[in-house]
Amino acid sequence: MQTDILTRATPTADTITGTALTTDSLAVARRRSAELEERIRREPGSFRVLTGDRPTGPLHLGHYFGTLRNRVRLQDAGVETFVLVADYQVLTDRDVAERQAETVEELLLDHLAVGIDPERSVIFAHSAVPALNQLLLPFLSLVSVAELQRNPTVKDEIAHSRQSAVSGLMFTYPVHQAADILFCKANLVPVGQDQLPHLEVTRTVARRFDDRYGPVFPVPDALLSEAPLLLGTDGTKMSKSRGNSIALGATADATAKLIKGARTDAERHITYDPEHRPEVSSLVLLAALCEGGDPHAVAEEIGGGAAALKRRVTESVNTFMAPMRARRAAYAKDRTYLREVLRSGNERAGAVAEATLAEVRQAMGTHY
Amino acid sequence: MQTDILTRATPTADTITGTALTTDSLAVARRRSAELEERIRREPGSFRVLTGDRPTGPLHLGHYFGTLRNRVRLQDAGVETFVLVADYQVLTDRDVAERQAETVEELLLDHLAVGIDPERSVIFAHSAVPALNQLLLPFLSLVSVAELQRNPTVKDEIAHSRQSAVSGLMFTYPVHQAADILFCKANLVPVGQDQLPHLEVTRTVARRFDDRYGPVFPVPDALLSEAPLLLGTDGTKMSKSRGNSIALGATADATAKLIKGARTDAERHITYDPEHRPEVSSLVLLAALCEGGDPHAVAEEIGGGAAALKRRVTESVNTFMAPMRARRAAYAKDRTYLREVLRSGNERAGAVAEATLAEVRQAMGTHY
Repeated sequence: MQTDILTRATPTADTITGTALTTDSLAVARRRSAELEERIRREPGSFRVLTGDRPTGPLHLGHYFGTLRNRVRLQDAGVETFVLVADYQVLTDRDVAERQAETVEELLLDHLAVGIDPERSVIFAHSAVPALNQLLLPFLSLVSVAELQRNPTVKDEIAHSRQSAVSGLMFTYPVHQAADILFCKANLVPVGQDQLPHLEVTRTVARRFDDRYGPVFPVPDALLSEAPLLLGTDGTKMSKSRGNSIALGATADATAKLIKGARTDAERHITYDPEHRPEVSSLVLLAALCEGGDPHAVAEEIGGGAAALKRRVTESVNTFMAPMRARRAAYAKDRTYLREVLRSGNERAGAVAEATLAEVRQAMGTHY
Repeated sequence: MQTDILTRATPTADTITGTALTTDSLAVARRRSAELEERIRREPGSFRVLTGDRPTGPLHLGHYFGTLRNRVRLQDAGVETFVLVADYQVLTDRDVAERQAETVEELLLDHLAVGIDPERSVIFAHSAVPALNQLLLPFLSLVSVAELQRNPTVKDEIAHSRQSAVSGLMFTYPVHQAADILFCKANLVPVGQDQLPHLEVTRTVARRFDDRYGPVFPVPDALLSEAPLLLGTDGTKMSKSRGNSIALGATADATAKLIKGARTDAERHITYDPEHRPEVSSLVLLAALCEGGDPHAVAEEIGGGAAALKRRVTESVNTFMAPMRARRAAYAKDRTYLREVLRSGNERAGAVAEATLAEVRQAMGTHY
């Protein structure tokens, strides 16, 4: 599944300390994020955001309302935004390699479709930025093996599979992520609440580097964003492989068909009750999100019947997605432009990474 | 202590398989090395050597007869030679960082002094070659955590210190070493017999990469070189911190003084008997190595007395080192030239690394 770069781990466990994320620390993070939102409104130019995805397949509406919308909001608020294509975190085999360039192009198309503007935001693949990747080395010297072993994803992998299945790349990925974030001195990283603890590795690396070698890196803040709970049309988690999600690249017809086949329940009256009626409520919520309305009000308007619900959802989604689809189709025709966007983003990210690496070299005494 | 990049681990344990190096496999390695020496004589141009050191301090005669002499021999035989300054493997703190550039310059001076020719050989610091370091990422995906944990150095560190003392950098260094060797597609790596097993990680990474993504890397061969057993003047292992070794940069007077204070034994007659008279024999061997003679013959010529032995050793060493010292002094006056040598080496290594990375990107499908 396509995931935000910070979503690769189990919720509510701190990567560095191994401690659980308490209700208290969540409250602190929420308060901090509210303060940050206030500062973003006042002085957007003082922030630089790093966000991104592992390129594993097409993005869908769940991604849109979960993260993409927020990225566009920050960009449009005037925050400098770096969008990472974390292609080194999907290394698997030759078959994937053969489709890699295409997968990345589709990801790029999805971003352009939803309103990421390559003039204002930098979209780049980390494999194309050697100076970023080089930061992994000094950063690895700042983190112990014991700390890496406490990483919940690694623990999880070791628990659920053979230990030999955990690659050195997976083991070190929180440190690679620190390089992804710190190469551009991002001071703001949008995360869902589950991912809050994962930013701690990056924050720790930044602090330790500066303590040891002098001030180079800001300690980035998490910007909590609440993702709406959208289920796939089969009532389970949205997933490309389950065919239960509306891809940003899907046609209006395919979307209508998918919604028509969506799972509902036997109750005739439509209500918004996520706890007791998850499938129906998810559809109501999707319509509400697309219309910018309140799900309770939308449910009331629909009144009765799954067919009416599906008609409403189909119309709302297709209306909402029409401009996105038009942009996507227009960009899709111009592969030269797409390659140029990525090439230019890689180049801009490269220049930023080289400037940071030069500072790192100065601080570490490796400037010769 | 200054060490060859491959010496950081315990002898006779295979890094990947964890199995001991058997007498049989040593015999195989010796036979293979003899074949390689024969091929080097016939077709030196078909080899590329990667060798190098961690820059921790001045090189001494132990390094000269142990590894440097062999590097110069290979270079002079017409083998393309890359000399790595493994500066990322000595990351410690701000104090070291402050002396880092100077330490690297001294290391460079030592190499120029012994006859490494920057026109023919590439001397470079791996911190200066981002495309080399980037290879760490795909390579890490080819090695499991379980395999890294079987690394004898890591095992040793965990056994002898707290596990928290093992950094992520130390844990992954065999894979970084694979990047050091494979970035230039070196197919020959000079190693002492203790270090033989360590090249296995690199060989494994090369094989796995090529299996997974198609042919890019040669599987490098170890070239066994037998290092003479030279002790420090106090009879213990040569070490900068013990002040018991003759630095390549030492003056003739300092050398005479050091040898004068060398430990010998109570027996008057000088013999070459490393097992029973290690200190005396080490001095005899040193004279013999400098003179290009046989240690038994040298001992016989000296005849009797520690004073006579020390006079002979002092004279032989100072005569032998005179041209080295002259070259070293001449180069030391021209810091601009030194910086230019390193800059140019970094640039040449960078171009080679970028070409290799381009092939890697093509193979992995990350070319956009």
